[in-house]
This record gives sequence, C-alpha cells and structure tokens, in this order.
Amino acid sequence: MRNIKLIIQYDGTSYHGWQIQPAVVTVERVLLDRLEKIIGEKVKLSAAARTDSGVHARCQVINFETTSSIAPRRLKLALNSLLPEDIVVARASLAPGGFNARFSARARIYRYTILNRTFRSPLDSRYCYFFPYRVDLDAMNRAVKFLIGKHDFSSFQASFGKKRSKSARAIERSNSVRTIERLKLFSRAGFIYTDIQANGFLTYMVRIVMGTLLDVGRGKILPEDVKEILEAMDRQQAGPTLPAKGLCLMKVIYLANPDRK
Amino acid sequence: MRNIKLIIQYDGTSYHGWQIQPAVVTVERVLLDRLEKIIGEKVKLSAAARTDSGVHARCQVINFETTSSIAPRRLKLALNSLLPEDIVVARASLAPGGFNARFSARARIYRYTILNRTFRSPLDSRYCYFFPYRVDLDAMNRAVKFLIGKHDFSSFQASFGKKRSKSARAIERSNSVRTIERLKLFSRAGFIYTDIQANGFLTYMVRIVMGTLLDVGRGKILPEDVKEILEAMDRQQAGPTLPAKGLCLMKVIYLANPDRK
Repeated sequence: MRNIKLIIQYDGTSYHGWQIQPAVVTVERVLLDRLEKIIGEKVKLSAAARTDSGVHARCQVINFETTSSIAPRRLKLALNSLLPEDIVVARASLAPGGFNARFSARARIYRYTILNRTFRSPLDSRYCYFFPYRVDLDAMNRAVKFLIGKHDFSSFQASFGKKRSKSARAIERSNSVRTIERLKLFSRAGFIYTDIQANGFLTYMVRIVMGTLLDVGRGKILPEDVKEILEAMDRQQAGPTLPAKGLCLMKVIYLANPDRK
Repeated sequence: MRNIKLIIQYDGTSYHGWQIQPAVVTVERVLLDRLEKIIGEKVKLSAAARTDSGVHARCQVINFETTSSIAPRRLKLALNSLLPEDIVVARASLAPGGFNARFSARARIYRYTILNRTFRSPLDSRYCYFFPYRVDLDAMNRAVKFLIGKHDFSSFQASFGKKRSKSARAIERSNSVRTIERLKLFSRAGFIYTDIQANGFLTYMVRIVMGTLLDVGRGKILPEDVKEILEAMDRQQAGPTLPAKGLCLMKVIYLANPDRK
C-alpha cells in the first residue's frame, strides 16, 4: 500500500464543510468521488481539519492509502481536471507509511478576517465578515493574553442544547482542553486579521473566540471579562459565533519526521 | 443644481458591464435605479470608465447633477443599504460644478491579473485568468516598451467585423490614438500583475494587449513583433482577447483642479 498526501484549497461557500454527511454536498464527498473514479478503488480519506460549513481552506492536508501505482504528479493533474472550480489540488506527493494527515498534525493555523470600515468590499465579500462599527483593537489585544495557553475552552465550543445525554456532555467537557499557541491580531487597509494557532480546535471555537473578542472591541465587555468567561466553562457566557465565511484554514504544522513521533 | 461625486466598487461577474443597455442587467442600471428611488428624481450618470461585461472595479468614479439636498454621507448610507452585495459606494462627496467623472479624467489605471502556476486558486478564481504554462516574463517586459507612448492602437481594438460601413470604420480609426503612459508587469506568489495607465482605452484594448503580451511570454511571437502588430493597424495581427474576469479598474486620475482645466 502506498500512502499519498494531498494539499488542497477550497472556497467553502457552496459546501457543507469538509466531512461527508448524508444528503448534503461536502468537500470530502466531491474529492472522494473524483479520486475513486481515477484510481478505480474505494479509499478512506484522513484530513488535518474538519472545516465547518462555509469555511475556506488555503492549505488543507489529506492522506489516503491505495494500491494504485499512479504517479502523484499525474494524480494531481487528473483530479484538477475533474474537480469543480472551487476545489483544487495544490500538491500531491508520496508520504511515509506512518504519516496521517489528522493524527500526525501538531498544530493548525486559522485566519479570521473582519472588514472593519463603513462600506462593504464586493471583491472580498465571500472571505470576510463585514463589521462597520468602531472597534478598539488595543482592548482586543489585551483580551488575547487570557486565551493563549492551555485551557478548557468549553465556553468557546458550540453548544448543542439539551439533545445530548449528560454522559455525552461529560465526555465533551473532558475533551475540551486545547492549547492556543499563538493568537495575533493586526489591521491593514480596513481589514482586521486574526491568526490563531492551536494544537486543535473545538467546534466553532475560532468563531466564538472572534465573537467574544469583537464584544471586547466594541466595548460590550472588558478585556478582563474574557478570563471569567473562560473559567465559567459555559457557552452562554461567551460572545456570538461569527459567520463561517470569514474563516480560513491557513496552515497545518507537522512534526519534522512523523515516523519517529 | 448640486454636483455629486461617487466612488464605487463592484464585482462585475454578474453584470453586462457598466453602461445601460436594453434587456440586460448592468451596474449603471442597478445604481441608477437605487439612486432615483432615494433622491426622488431622474438623473443622468457620468462614469470615468465604461467597463465591459464581467470587468471589475475597485475605484469607478461617477457624478450626477441633482436638485436633491441630501447630504453625501447620508446618500452613501442609503445607497449601500439598497445596493446588492456586489456593488458598493465607497465614498460620496460634493464636487465642483465643472467636474465631470468622464471628461475631467486625465488617465485610467487598470490591472490585469494572470494566475501562472500549475493549479487554479479557488479563492481568487473570480478575479484572475488561469494560465498554467511556462511564461517568459523577461520577453514580455521587452515587448512592453513598444506599446508605451502615443500610438494608433487599432490592432488592439475589438473588431466588429464587416457590419460597419467604410466611413464608420474610418471614423473608428481616426479615434484610435491613445497614449499608454505606464505599463508595468510584475509577478508575486504565482500571479502576474500588469498595471496599465493610459489617457483612455479602446474597446477590449487591455485584454487584447494582454493576449498579445502572453503570446510573447509563451514564445509564440517575439517581443519585436509587437512593434509590427502595432504598425499593422489590424486586429487580426494581435493576440487573443483575454477573459474579462482578470481585469479590474484600479484608479482614475484627475487634474488637481478640474474647474481650471
């Protein structure tokens, strides 16, 4: 069996996220469909990030094992000729046997883009959240330091209401510890960019973090309040979930040699 | 009468260009419709550039005369609340009586964007022309110098076949002298950007210039051939018309004081 690694980019606007789900079009479904047509066998994809509905990717990493002997370069060309315009394979290569796009990943970097000026930008509207009100970037930057590091991010995780059993929620909670290794905000030409690097992300985590930071920026809460929100471990305490279209997976960081991990 | 100046941006993908035409949706039609609703009277728009179908604008300049006393700032907000997401008013202001967005303009700057790498870019696909083959940028740059300056650009003008009378074509020819003041090519991260500044442009001129430069870049013709193509004054000699989606109106240059022109 050969282990093949793909780096793909997509505009998530028309997709229900990465992962295959019944009855909706997802990036994984479209990619898998074209891939199996080319290599003539069923495979199982592993992806570095399960991006949500509407989220974009400049650098999603995928791998799969196959008996096919197709050269990665030819596979890339064949896939790109079959894929729709909003998904593309940027690179295809052979990976070491032990490489798994999801489990070998050490960290993911996402960027959230806010357009912060009085008028929309038609040429960027698919890739940013438009927020035309005054924002205090310094206050947002003061709030950031409470988020960096290893924390239980339950407050910044999508809440699925009461549908789930108590035990299921207990498991969720025990799994909600993540480490934000880097969180950097900067503004340029009317845009506020936020780059967040973590070992992993909970459902909607970046978008809830951004909604909370924006609450700080508009003066609705204080920078110090973010510490309390974090400690409350309660989704109700945090800010709103900002729209998916502002979010983009920018990079996945792997150990230098995944085989010797 | 007050003279109001607007700076607008649009994603031209869904429009049959700027200018009002029967039975199709144009940017002018949509803008005029919303504008007349707000100010309650018929007006006539003048635009710095009549962008073609599918062409984008980061900085189209418009003006119109009105008896309405609405404050420009309020007009901008009102227009932006009524306009679709792909058109936006970036600025509205009072202009001197003598200002005309079209006739006071001294020069226009367009940018043409080519994606020149082996794979498409889903997040930029609406705003660039994808050309995956090797290109000799140095050769293209050597061809540029033949285009700069005052020339008859008949070879780089859309040809409308034999439908027009001889006299009509004679008039066209006499009007096909333009001055390219600046033409700069540069590449960055897989993209080739071309910025062209001229006192005016003929129909499809930038896109035919780009098709011809790309013929040079791919070795189909020599840089020196561009001189002959220019002198031939024959559309058949030049290269193909590149797609509209790679073209964007970037800037309009006005005299410091249009009243004293």
